[in-house]
Amino acid sequence: MGHKPVGVAVVGAGYWGPNLIRNFLSSPDAELRWVCDLDAERAARVLGRRSEVRIATDLQEVLADPEVEAVAIATPSWTHLPLGLAALRAGKHVLMEKPLATSVEEGEQLVATAAEMGRVLMCDFTFCYTPVVRRLREMIATGELGDVLYIDTVRVNLGLVQDDIDVFWDLGPHDLSILDFILTDQYRPVEIAATGADPLGTGQTCVGYLSLTLASGAIAHVTLNWLSPTKIRQMVISGSKRMALWDDLKVGARLSLYDRGVEITPVVDRDEKRKRMVSYRTGDIVTPALPETEALSAVVSEFAHCIREGRTPLTDGVAGLRNLHILEAAGKSLQSGGVPVPLEVNHVR
Amino acid sequence: MGHKPVGVAVVGAGYWGPNLIRNFLSSPDAELRWVCDLDAERAARVLGRRSEVRIATDLQEVLADPEVEAVAIATPSWTHLPLGLAALRAGKHVLMEKPLATSVEEGEQLVATAAEMGRVLMCDFTFCYTPVVRRLREMIATGELGDVLYIDTVRVNLGLVQDDIDVFWDLGPHDLSILDFILTDQYRPVEIAATGADPLGTGQTCVGYLSLTLASGAIAHVTLNWLSPTKIRQMVISGSKRMALWDDLKVGARLSLYDRGVEITPVVDRDEKRKRMVSYRTGDIVTPALPETEALSAVVSEFAHCIREGRTPLTDGVAGLRNLHILEAAGKSLQSGGVPVPLEVNHVR
Amino acid sequence: MGHKPVGVAVVGAGYWGPNLIRNFLSSPDAELRWVCDLDAERAARVLGRRSEVRIATDLQEVLADPEVEAVAIATPSWTHLPLGLAALRAGKHVLMEKPLATSVEEGEQLVATAAEMGRVLMCDFTFCYTPVVRRLREMIATGELGDVLYIDTVRVNLGLVQDDIDVFWDLGPHDLSILDFILTDQYRPVEIAATGADPLGTGQTCVGYLSLTLASGAIAHVTLNWLSPTKIRQMVISGSKRMALWDDLKVGARLSLYDRGVEITPVVDRDEKRKRMVSYRTGDIVTPALPETEALSAVVSEFAHCIREGRTPLTDGVAGLRNLHILEAAGKSLQSGGVPVPLEVNHVR
Amino acid sequence: MGHKPVGVAVVGAGYWGPNLIRNFLSSPDAELRWVCDLDAERAARVLGRRSEVRIATDLQEVLADPEVEAVAIATPSWTHLPLGLAALRAGKHVLMEKPLATSVEEGEQLVATAAEMGRVLMCDFTFCYTPVVRRLREMIATGELGDVLYIDTVRVNLGLVQDDIDVFWDLGPHDLSILDFILTDQYRPVEIAATGADPLGTGQTCVGYLSLTLASGAIAHVTLNWLSPTKIRQMVISGSKRMALWDDLKVGARLSLYDRGVEITPVVDRDEKRKRMVSYRTGDIVTPALPETEALSAVVSEFAHCIREGRTPLTDGVAGLRNLHILEAAGKSLQSGGVPVPLEVNHVR
Repeated sequence: MGHKPVGVAVVGAGYWGPNLIRNFLSSPDAELRWVCDLDAERAARVLGRRSEVRIATDLQEVLADPEVEAVAIATPSWTHLPLGLAALRAGKHVLMEKPLATSVEEGEQLVATAAEMGRVLMCDFTFCYTPVVRRLREMIATGELGDVLYIDTVRVNLGLVQDDIDVFWDLGPHDLSILDFILTDQYRPVEIAATGADPLGTGQTCVGYLSLTLASGAIAHVTLNWLSPTKIRQMVISGSKRMALWDDLKVGARLSLYDRGVEITPVVDRDEKRKRMVSYRTGDIVTPALPETEALSAVVSEFAHCIREGRTPLTDGVAGLRNLHILEAAGKSLQSGGVPVPLEVNHVR
Repeated sequence: MGHKPVGVAVVGAGYWGPNLIRNFLSSPDAELRWVCDLDAERAARVLGRRSEVRIATDLQEVLADPEVEAVAIATPSWTHLPLGLAALRAGKHVLMEKPLATSVEEGEQLVATAAEMGRVLMCDFTFCYTPVVRRLREMIATGELGDVLYIDTVRVNLGLVQDDIDVFWDLGPHDLSILDFILTDQYRPVEIAATGADPLGTGQTCVGYLSLTLASGAIAHVTLNWLSPTKIRQMVISGSKRMALWDDLKVGARLSLYDRGVEITPVVDRDEKRKRMVSYRTGDIVTPALPETEALSAVVSEFAHCIREGRTPLTDGVAGLRNLHILEAAGKSLQSGGVPVPLEVNHVR
Repeated sequence: MGHKPVGVAVVGAGYWGPNLIRNFLSSPDAELRWVCDLDAERAARVLGRRSEVRIATDLQEVLADPEVEAVAIATPSWTHLPLGLAALRAGKHVLMEKPLATSVEEGEQLVATAAEMGRVLMCDFTFCYTPVVRRLREMIATGELGDVLYIDTVRVNLGLVQDDIDVFWDLGPHDLSILDFILTDQYRPVEIAATGADPLGTGQTCVGYLSLTLASGAIAHVTLNWLSPTKIRQMVISGSKRMALWDDLKVGARLSLYDRGVEITPVVDRDEKRKRMVSYRTGDIVTPALPETEALSAVVSEFAHCIREGRTPLTDGVAGLRNLHILEAAGKSLQSGGVPVPLEVNHVR
Repeated sequence: MGHKPVGVAVVGAGYWGPNLIRNFLSSPDAELRWVCDLDAERAARVLGRRSEVRIATDLQEVLADPEVEAVAIATPSWTHLPLGLAALRAGKHVLMEKPLATSVEEGEQLVATAAEMGRVLMCDFTFCYTPVVRRLREMIATGELGDVLYIDTVRVNLGLVQDDIDVFWDLGPHDLSILDFILTDQYRPVEIAATGADPLGTGQTCVGYLSLTLASGAIAHVTLNWLSPTKIRQMVISGSKRMALWDDLKVGARLSLYDRGVEITPVVDRDEKRKRMVSYRTGDIVTPALPETEALSAVVSEFAHCIREGRTPLTDGVAGLRNLHILEAAGKSLQSGGVPVPLEVNHVR
């Protein structure tokens, strides 16, 4: 890009941190200077032998380094607020793992602080940087899919039951950020209902379902599950012109576009009765050739470019805040036994 | 079986009727005598050339034949009540397509009339007669799956949008009858919430979701959809000992049993704080060898045997009535915007 | 079609006969009059109760019926010659199961007799009547696939080990008839090598491989196997413009067309050395919408039309003869330990 | 392991080198000191920023470093001999990419030199270190699969057409080394036939088939292809007790064991005729839980342990030599138009 690489520190070398580290190390746009983790040995193991990247167990040491311009935070979500505020207040740009924070209130603090300090606050909504999601966004924007009829997304696995967050807060940010990214304004969510269960008595909802009513009247349904025997990552976007099926586990053929649909033509018959004529369309299926690039490398590049060019990221703190609004509303619905809760997330722009 | 074959008439030669006709024709337990359809040509086409089976357009003609002991009704659901009552009152046994009727009230009339006349009233809940469903029922009854943690079932297709019933009443009876058949009493449904959409303006819900809360606290979630680009028929039953995945489109390997799970052990640590120890189990997957027999042939056989032996069918009218109770409650929840509705279906025994 | 239905008898009610019977019964072009099988009970069971079709155990009785214009023979292959000759000499048209006969010499007798008697002799190469094979034939003929680079076909299963024929004679006719049907003259097979094994000591080759060298220099490889744990029916036709993958078990999406390939451009570099420039193309995959019609119904229709219109069938006796030529050559190669054997099958026109 | 890490250099930072580099960097058993490549920039890119590993373009510089005890060579195969000899003669242990060399003669030089210098010569037959292949080896050794009836393996892709080697020398070493690793002595290959084609005129066989006759009479068939629209990596090992299907692209469920088979019982009937009774077994399918570890990390570990402990590697130079013997024989068969060529590879022990 011609810019000087951005000096970066990664905080957290646990589950996701190693991916950030690997991508910062291979990016021409960044210079990884520190990895910070309470467990120095873990950090060392991730960096491997013979690395010049420095290791810290104390964030202050990292923030004190003037060569560190930006911090990527991949720690448990309850630490996002204190670590994010510390970094922003030290004048660093911040790339935050999902969810942005553990509540709307916390998220607002982070967004406000970033604005105040004039620093970039970006959410690492990795999926938004995949070729599939970019294509879906484009197909909805240009009308290539037609009207969105419904969306159904499934993200299940035999996954990590977590102490501090439930399955909505763990897996939900992925799907909610993707929907936020690809849907145009007429499909903004206006209501949410959540159901779920904790059949093992873990103290956290492990099996959850979200039903989002969109402004257009269409429905977006989200299945999230930590107790599934198999891993599924699928999203169907049914449009009036074409239907898209994204199966993220089909490497090399993740997206399929179906020229299929139902068409309803209102007719008036001889007896003046209104009827509907239903016809079906079963055309070809196309699997577009999409590059198999690593999305996280695009995240790292977007982060660095926004810093150098003073741009707002595609997935900025405000997008993270919309995410939190929906998660909070889902929690309210869940507590009330599934009663739908209205959303005003769209004032958050 | 040694019994004299049961003289049978099939009413309705449309979508499902031909399957009944074929199975009655090849059954040693039955003697198909009539096919009755308003469209005599359609009936003839289904029977093929050179059949001795008689064709009627008027049910009365069929019911008047003393050799007809039993009638299988595969007509639109709003005709189930009048046709069923006529047959029962004429002293015929009745095999009824799902749903049993279009309301609990109608279903109760059919059940009461069958009891009054001393005739068999059986619901053709075909899936309950598949080797997979029988195995699942057995695995739950014997505890082989352990405690049922959750059930998730998906039945979607680019299917026929129908005039007289919505997607819940069309596809729901399959899943609800399966659940009714395999679950023991501790998992009886106690509450239901329904959401759905009619994004094409057909006048019928085409995309629907049911959340059933079971007495044990577990959840059973049902996805039903007429607008899906792909056909999916899957059911996951997650048990504390094993997890079962039924993919009905994987011919020859429909059922997979996963020795997988999450185990939660409550522990008390040194600081007297209660904690949970979470461990994961990832064992083998077993695909049991199950016969690939046609379930409908077992339906026909069960029907004939119940008639000859004076037995109550595995899926009798009362099972059909429980089905209707749940469908009605789902309708109420849908109308109220998704608010959960309590179920008292289990008094129906 | 307007023609009077052709009076037909089916000989053999074993494995394939029931499919013929079903299709003749539902065809508007034919009138099934007899089913002939040494086992009358089996024939009755296949016809089901209440059929007017007559049953015979003696072919002569059938051939004596003047209303029988045509005979479909689905008996073990060593009976094809005597039964076929008897039918043809009785003035009947013949539809013969694959393989046409057990040797070229036998096949020639059948073809000659049909010609002599002026009767239709058609081979039931069912796959040639599927929408996929018709499309493949068209794509090769019009050049839509470009030059055929290679063909690889796999037809394996845990199948019936047979007494009278080996895996080449059992499964090979399918693939060889398909190749014969879709390939244009520049791709006629000119040489064949066969390898195989009989690891269970059944007396018959159970696992076999054919390598056909085509006139163009391309290769067609055929894998045939009775001992496979899984069922596979796949054919790849790699063309210079597009590649076709036919997976016959993917119902509703059997054919996939890949816009993929390798391109070789010869270049001469500065040092006058000839080099090759290799480039790769990875475009979209298209799954064309094809009807899911039953091929055997098209076979029955073609047979009836050819009889009424005096036409030569798409898969006539001569096509069956080419099939036998290749199978005989494969046998010779197998006996000589895999040495390639030249083919002069193409004189057979 | 307690041993001092082995000082290592990787030669070649092209296709496979980066994987070796990554695994040496993360191994506790090795210390990566140099990466050597003619293209220093490529080497730097692979190492990423902030690495202390040194880069060389001249192998002599690397070999002169006394801290380098071992060299891993991942360069084009025609350079294996000179680079391998140089390394061995400099007293370094060598891990060589497949194929070991470009001829038996070359391979013998490498093996002899390693023996002479008392150094470890190991072939990086990576697949032999996967959990699946280890399990297959064990199942054959213990008789768990029963007698091996046949083996069928497919390794195809739209892959890199190469200048210096054909598809047999490129992909064949994988399958041949796996067979060499898992098969016991009674299944040693005794004959090989090869067919293939170069339909694009690249100068190299791009589509190839190998038929190996095993000492037991069973057959092992290998499909190799650079021009396939889809990627397939499958191996079937059909045993008399169980059948194994290895699909290397099914992550998490790569191996399936089928309790299926055909059993042949010779019987003598009343007329003193010898007959065979054929019966089929269709039991469960088991997908054993296998760890999803990276095989190359086990390769690196084996290499380091063999150096420290003076052991012969599981896949030593002699295994590589057997590989070359078969590849050479395949080449002879190919040139003679597919005539089978006897193998004396098994004297190579």
